[in-house]
Amino acid sequence: MTLAVAEGRKMNVAVVGSGALGLYYGALLQRGGHDVTFLMRRDYDAVKAGGLKVTSPTGDFNLPQVKACRTTAEIGPVDMVLVGLKATANAKLEPLVRPLVADDTVVVTLQNGLGCEDLLAEAFGADRVIGGTAFLCSNRGEPGVVHHLDQGSVRLAEFRGGLTGRLASLAKTFSAAGIPCEACPDLARIRWEKLVWNIPFNGLCALTGLATDKLLACDETRRLIIQMMREVIDAANCQGLSESIDADAFMNRMITATEGMDAYKPSMMIDRLSGQPLELGAIYAEPLRRAEAAGEPMTRVGVLYALLQVTE
Amino acid sequence: MTLAVAEGRKMNVAVVGSGALGLYYGALLQRGGHDVTFLMRRDYDAVKAGGLKVTSPTGDFNLPQVKACRTTAEIGPVDMVLVGLKATANAKLEPLVRPLVADDTVVVTLQNGLGCEDLLAEAFGADRVIGGTAFLCSNRGEPGVVHHLDQGSVRLAEFRGGLTGRLASLAKTFSAAGIPCEACPDLARIRWEKLVWNIPFNGLCALTGLATDKLLACDETRRLIIQMMREVIDAANCQGLSESIDADAFMNRMITATEGMDAYKPSMMIDRLSGQPLELGAIYAEPLRRAEAAGEPMTRVGVLYALLQVTE
Repeated sequence: MTLAVAEGRKMNVAVVGSGALGLYYGALLQRGGHDVTFLMRRDYDAVKAGGLKVTSPTGDFNLPQVKACRTTAEIGPVDMVLVGLKATANAKLEPLVRPLVADDTVVVTLQNGLGCEDLLAEAFGADRVIGGTAFLCSNRGEPGVVHHLDQGSVRLAEFRGGLTGRLASLAKTFSAAGIPCEACPDLARIRWEKLVWNIPFNGLCALTGLATDKLLACDETRRLIIQMMREVIDAANCQGLSESIDADAFMNRMITATEGMDAYKPSMMIDRLSGQPLELGAIYAEPLRRAEAAGEPMTRVGVLYALLQVTE
Repeated sequence: MTLAVAEGRKMNVAVVGSGALGLYYGALLQRGGHDVTFLMRRDYDAVKAGGLKVTSPTGDFNLPQVKACRTTAEIGPVDMVLVGLKATANAKLEPLVRPLVADDTVVVTLQNGLGCEDLLAEAFGADRVIGGTAFLCSNRGEPGVVHHLDQGSVRLAEFRGGLTGRLASLAKTFSAAGIPCEACPDLARIRWEKLVWNIPFNGLCALTGLATDKLLACDETRRLIIQMMREVIDAANCQGLSESIDADAFMNRMITATEGMDAYKPSMMIDRLSGQPLELGAIYAEPLRRAEAAGEPMTRVGVLYALLQVTE
């Protein structure tokens, strides 16, 4: 299937899910010369009136003119759909994306957890689906403002696997727009690697109301984080990955990176503090199910999931 | 060693730690004809002015005249010291109890967790120490009021072990005062059996802010409670108990009893809600240490402990 992805080509992009991730990457793609339209709710009026402002340690910037719509029907077919919707809203993902999809539309999801690509593949065909993980620290500010705090790289992989030419083109397109991007051959591997961070930090921060620095400063929770990371890696390495995750090296990288983030509040903590539903299905229930099915149950992660569930 | 314990004898009793447990059992002993003096802080003025009121599903009662002191030096030597102090205050236990102890004084501790008897034995001699567990639902009300909610039985055991005559006498004394009491030969066994309840419910309720009924109504936490109970029993059965705990039968009893308690808020939950320190050392750290040392680590309990520690 030939998709509307080619190196150097200006793309029509629809951002579905204009949260901290969608706003930031959408803004970078627009600044990089692409024709971006945001599906927006909360920020609609502010963006229509005053554009979108990005604050970032690498330099703030403003986009005075930003295209925003309240429905995807108004946007119509695009070259690329960029999905940044919370996985808790996945029940409405198919009808939301449907009006954006033409024959050659590529659908890229940077959502958290497991299972998002499967939904899109079933609805729109496996061949147009690309999944990815973002290692991004960003929060929404007041309407019309998104704060980029740290990190920001993306890894992309074909739902069907393999290092295709179109995947390489898309990664170059992202990188050219200022989004460090790597094309990867194995979607499951990049999803599970992301879970190695998300499973301990998202849930523990949401449950305790403490940011990442506090959890790493306490001996008991620092040890727990490392134990949970090992459980996730052990489960990941039973999922038939193209290449195993090297537990010690990977955990060290994650801990070091997190220490560099200072007092970071992961998205799930922000969700809980603001009374939003948590992405428990994609980040906990589905990984726990797949780990159990592979004979490598994640015991400590199961405790955290139960505690998040009962307080939800 | 002959202690001041004999069936039918009226005893001088000092209650050290006049919380929900100390107030309730002290009131029953006084009503039963014993000469009880409470070491009191919070309730002192109210009790001096208006006595002590006990509400209970088995019948409310008032003690218009109650002896209360602000220091144990004012009380002086007694026949029996009844310790109901929080284990978090154990650093001051020895100086608090010291003025109460004569040659034949028996020291009974109904504190939670592991390690309290060891402290008392070291300070005052192992032979005078009796440990016990209370399966009691009670909360403090306004000053001068204690609410008995449910249950209330006590199990007593010699620190040195064995079914001694004095232990049998003490159990009969308690029972005669309306405190259902059983003399048991193995202190470790009754302590660990109590932990089977305390470890899951105290910590989970304190951490989540949810009472027992909510935790049992959620599938994930109900399963977690049962898994934690099994971890505690497996660890207990490696502690050289006189008789193993029958896991299934004991867990069923605990779950059924807890379901009968309705929306109970365990002491640790009350402590957290009122900003008091939690009894984490006696109820978690020491049992976890002994379980690990016996080669039967309590994995899920360790997660709960870490979460309680970081939020403390």
